[in-house]
Amino acid sequence: MTPTVKNHSHHISRQFNADLEEVKKHMLEMGGLVEKQLQDAINAIADADSALGSRVIEQDSIVDAMEVSIDEECNLILARRQPAASDLRLVLAIIKTVRDLERIGDEASKIAKSGVKLSERGEFPNGVAEFRQLGNRVKKMVNMALDAFTRYDTESALSIAMEDSDVDNEYSSAMRSAINLMTDNPDLISKVLNLLWAFRALERIGDHAKNICEHVVYLVAGTDIRHEDLATVATKMRPTSD
Amino acid sequence: MTPTVKNHSHHISRQFNADLEEVKKHMLEMGGLVEKQLQDAINAIADADSALGSRVIEQDSIVDAMEVSIDEECNLILARRQPAASDLRLVLAIIKTVRDLERIGDEASKIAKSGVKLSERGEFPNGVAEFRQLGNRVKKMVNMALDAFTRYDTESALSIAMEDSDVDNEYSSAMRSAINLMTDNPDLISKVLNLLWAFRALERIGDHAKNICEHVVYLVAGTDIRHEDLATVATKMRPTSD
Repeated sequence: MTPTVKNHSHHISRQFNADLEEVKKHMLEMGGLVEKQLQDAINAIADADSALGSRVIEQDSIVDAMEVSIDEECNLILARRQPAASDLRLVLAIIKTVRDLERIGDEASKIAKSGVKLSERGEFPNGVAEFRQLGNRVKKMVNMALDAFTRYDTESALSIAMEDSDVDNEYSSAMRSAINLMTDNPDLISKVLNLLWAFRALERIGDHAKNICEHVVYLVAGTDIRHEDLATVATKMRPTSD
Repeated sequence: MTPTVKNHSHHISRQFNADLEEVKKHMLEMGGLVEKQLQDAINAIADADSALGSRVIEQDSIVDAMEVSIDEECNLILARRQPAASDLRLVLAIIKTVRDLERIGDEASKIAKSGVKLSERGEFPNGVAEFRQLGNRVKKMVNMALDAFTRYDTESALSIAMEDSDVDNEYSSAMRSAINLMTDNPDLISKVLNLLWAFRALERIGDHAKNICEHVVYLVAGTDIRHEDLATVATKMRPTSD
């Protein structure tokens, strides 16, 4: 290989890595905005803050635009650089994660809509403490899933993914309380349903956080663990001490 | 170019096209199964057929396995053939469509769960006719979206995508009836909620059918129309008669 060619290919590979780092940075920026949207949406309900809720709904279009732009960046990288192996997996994992982030933004916007409706109808204390608690838990899952992505940390990704079943349980328990509350107070049905939709959105966000964790495992280990039992996967991936 | 090289590259391109056709075929097979799952789930509710509902829930793992396997096929094509331009868009559109199909399968399985619960609790005629009607409509959207994919038909894709707002309206009207029904009959709340979840799943499936239509437009025209006003897009894409 002549020095010229070497320098040229060195240049290409440096540019390629810079592209990959750049798109990953954009994904994490989008993640940061989505986390903020989720936090604001939770507060809109918990503090009956209708103005905050409206702001979240408005800003959803920024999240949407970020998805389209990052997707475009990824497509350009695939077309121009034709990455292979782990670089290809990184691009595919970013495409999928960005889609999950967009969905989380969507769900945050639904929570905000419930928040606006609830606060318009005056004080509504029932279930709000449980909502804030589950909301914070789910938000932490999203944050830690993105953190696991940054650090390529499959162990942490798997343990966050396993938390999703606790979220599902808390959601089911909130559902049962809501049904009891509605049965005892039929005049509250509309209000309680608004809170129920918001709970359901949190449950969905937990699913998306779990998806992101699965993309991290695919990215690092090259295995597709969707639809597999996570405890078994964790055992298989753990380094043995023998 | 020597004849050997020509034959060789001709051979590669023939094999590449065969790979693309094969993965597209698998996507459409998955689509066929998902449509069947959706039809069965709708019937499970409309005919209070608990056995049928259980079958849908069981078969969801087949849909999941198809998603993983087609995704793997696509990743291999990206890694080995490094497609460009419209071939690359086809692979990316298949990856995204398969994910929507998996979600539709998931929602069908949720409808089936509501069906099992509803039929265990005896006859429940309220809202079932409306449910079947919206269900058939949404199922037709999925079918036509896949058909538009097969024929690379952007015009048809756009008109199906625009139907989604009708689905949203029908869903909102079903919600209002359900709230009235629960208010008048608090003892029916649990049952009505089961039907409401099923309605909500239909509304989601409409969203996924719309997503598939957007992938078709991206595939054919190379433009990303998510989050854009569909009527404007349709006007822009229509050939002018001037």
